Amino acid sequence: MGIAIIIGAGEGLSGSLARKLHARGYQLILAARNTAKLINLQKETDATLVSCDASNATDMERVFAAADAIGEPLKIAIYNPSARVRGGITDLDPQAVKSAILITGYGAFLMAQQAAKRMIPNGKGAILFTGASAGVKGYPNSSTFAMGKFALRGLAQSLARELHPQGIHIGHFVIDGGIRNSNRAEHIELEKNLDTMLDPEAIADNYLHFLDQPRSSWAWEIELRPWVEKF
Amino acid sequence: MGIAIIIGAGEGLSGSLARKLHARGYQLILAARNTAKLINLQKETDATLVSCDASNATDMERVFAAADAIGEPLKIAIYNPSARVRGGITDLDPQAVKSAILITGYGAFLMAQQAAKRMIPNGKGAILFTGASAGVKGYPNSSTFAMGKFALRGLAQSLARELHPQGIHIGHFVIDGGIRNSNRAEHIELEKNLDTMLDPEAIADNYLHFLDQPRSSWAWEIELRPWVEKF
Amino acid sequence: MGIAIIIGAGEGLSGSLARKLHARGYQLILAARNTAKLINLQKETDATLVSCDASNATDMERVFAAADAIGEPLKIAIYNPSARVRGGITDLDPQAVKSAILITGYGAFLMAQQAAKRMIPNGKGAILFTGASAGVKGYPNSSTFAMGKFALRGLAQSLARELHPQGIHIGHFVIDGGIRNSNRAEHIELEKNLDTMLDPEAIADNYLHFLDQPRSSWAWEIELRPWVEKF
Amino acid sequence: MGIAIIIGAGEGLSGSLARKLHARGYQLILAARNTAKLINLQKETDATLVSCDASNATDMERVFAAADAIGEPLKIAIYNPSARVRGGITDLDPQAVKSAILITGYGAFLMAQQAAKRMIPNGKGAILFTGASAGVKGYPNSSTFAMGKFALRGLAQSLARELHPQGIHIGHFVIDGGIRNSNRAEHIELEKNLDTMLDPEAIADNYLHFLDQPRSSWAWEIELRPWVEKF
Repeated sequence: MGIAIIIGAGEGLSGSLARKLHARGYQLILAARNTAKLINLQKETDATLVSCDASNATDMERVFAAADAIGEPLKIAIYNPSARVRGGITDLDPQAVKSAILITGYGAFLMAQQAAKRMIPNGKGAILFTGASAGVKGYPNSSTFAMGKFALRGLAQSLARELHPQGIHIGHFVIDGGIRNSNRAEHIELEKNLDTMLDPEAIADNYLHFLDQPRSSWAWEIELRPWVEKF
Repeated sequence: MGIAIIIGAGEGLSGSLARKLHARGYQLILAARNTAKLINLQKETDATLVSCDASNATDMERVFAAADAIGEPLKIAIYNPSARVRGGITDLDPQAVKSAILITGYGAFLMAQQAAKRMIPNGKGAILFTGASAGVKGYPNSSTFAMGKFALRGLAQSLARELHPQGIHIGHFVIDGGIRNSNRAEHIELEKNLDTMLDPEAIADNYLHFLDQPRSSWAWEIELRPWVEKF
Repeated sequence: MGIAIIIGAGEGLSGSLARKLHARGYQLILAARNTAKLINLQKETDATLVSCDASNATDMERVFAAADAIGEPLKIAIYNPSARVRGGITDLDPQAVKSAILITGYGAFLMAQQAAKRMIPNGKGAILFTGASAGVKGYPNSSTFAMGKFALRGLAQSLARELHPQGIHIGHFVIDGGIRNSNRAEHIELEKNLDTMLDPEAIADNYLHFLDQPRSSWAWEIELRPWVEKF
Repeated sequence: MGIAIIIGAGEGLSGSLARKLHARGYQLILAARNTAKLINLQKETDATLVSCDASNATDMERVFAAADAIGEPLKIAIYNPSARVRGGITDLDPQAVKSAILITGYGAFLMAQQAAKRMIPNGKGAILFTGASAGVKGYPNSSTFAMGKFALRGLAQSLARELHPQGIHIGHFVIDGGIRNSNRAEHIELEKNLDTMLDPEAIADNYLHFLDQPRSSWAWEIELRPWVEKF
């Protein structure tokens, strides 16, 4: 099937994606700042782990070099990392803001560039970005996250126009709401019948749906939120 | 499985939807201005046919009365009709413009109202609208279609906010590009390998994808276009 | 200066516009369903009054025939009327919904068509539409207003693309918030220092600002809301 | 009148703004990477010049310290700088991309933070950002500019929601089209009667219009383009 790279791997959405892509036969490369937390997922999915600061160009090259070493075509690249600094504009630390923008936005560019270099010669592939409602609406006291997620959406929309005609499918997933965390047992119980938080399995199914779209009928974006979420 | 109603049934997208929903076990009601053209589809899908002017309230009631007569719960209602009057603003016939707005926008309201009356008591169901790029961007020399499709999108967005918390899933499908027509053989050949037109089967799969989304992770809109379509 | 037509004239925003345009030397034609309420404004602005159902094509022709009779060029046409039917989708009366869509959206088309016929030969003029936040966001329990105001915005955007290159300036004003009503004395006092409601004089100044924009730098839309309004 | 700071000062739009604000009586601080080019403008407007890398937090503090030294209240802060790196995603230099995002987006945050610290205690002021069509639409082969200008727009929208209720007016100006350059004589002649490029004087008048809006009726964004510009 080829290789799928997930940047910002962990449990939750990335874990669901990793398991579903492994089940489809993809060779997985999971990259994260701290790969220690990925040991169980690595065993389950037979993945290659690479530690990486997503906003560091050299680190990002190293992740894709690991894909090259496997010797199969790169089919999928998924970008999840984001950083959020909350607070009113006057309360924010400029260094933290800069770092957050670079992780949320610039790192996605670094990944897309590495992925595009490998996919364009094949005329196929998919580059998927995990966005947020903060990327379509700038909330108060959230200027940092707005900057990062708007930048990410601008990147994705620009790449959809640039790379779709080259056979590379772009996906931008606007996650609007809290994601259910299976590690917090109380949440599971609480949410079991209410579905007030996004289920990572359900989100992941939307990523797979994009992968399944034939090129005659491609989407580049979808917004997902719980039925009871105000918007 | 319950009942699925398709307003503006015909071949192409509606035909694909009808076959796929029939295969899933839904009882179909197909409504169109002229039901004569639906005979083959009716045989294939064991559907009930109802003739209807979609912008006529009494006609719309009659379509849903046919569903009531079957005695199963209404699960899905899909609205396809639209009317387009092309030309510069000064060239348009006001009566044709009025009629087009009512068919494209108001008829969707009539359907949604009838559907909501039956779905709300059950706390579930899906109401799906076939939109167009004209609903998100007003093109020159296309003011009539812009009015109708913007109105349709406004309706869908309003209903998503109103009915999602009542368990009714709303879908608005922004079709951007020409739809492949299997009746035009030359087109099929021409397009076979190029995928420059939307495949009705692929569009229909997106409608089904919305039906499959669990309520923890609902979308209300998706844009679909061929990989080579400029946007 | 030429002629300015205001459809949906009354006090509030239309009154402010009428006085400001009169002060600039325009010959005014004020049209409304009930012109009796316009007597004072008529005296103040030396306007011609025409009664009209804005969604009736014949009525609209009559309004513009009054302009033709004056024998000066038509420079400005402003559309204010809207109709709102509040309530959940199942509670709405279909006839009231149809009427509301036609007044809010279709009537604007009728006006734009008459205006364009007279402005295009001159290669200049301005057609301005009073929109609402309901035209950019579909609120729950407000599907009727969403349909009408989305349709209006689609019309305006389409005409901006069609008529700007013909020298006709289009303006769509997204009014987001309550408009201060000088007839309600208690409101004036209440609001005097808080500015929590839109001032009609201030809104009208934005319409004039559009009229003052040279064609090298045209806007087609602006959103206006009180400083404290949530959005 | 107080102090107005312009970051990214030069001729063109910034020059027009500087002259108009000087004429209104504001004390000007003009900041640019290279202040040598500002000598003439400085003489004309009696401005204080400060050299600054807009994406450097220390530099930005220094600009605002110059305002503090004057001892009048800060009323206006305007951000113009942007950096563009053109090319397909695979051709871009990551360091240049990072630098461009920081100048176009992060620098605007640095300015807004310094401005807000001084304006919030007064409960008034205006922070204005020069955006571009690239901030609302991601064009192909322009992913870098899309990231920067989307980030800028996200910042502006977030701050409008956060600071409007604190009395600080936010403006985001979407410039869509080429700006006429008075230094290129041939352009002036060429464009004199065609108005196919934005006139800096006309753009600046829109900034002033925002300054003149009373808080009952604030806009946060306006799109400006020549009458013949496709969009």
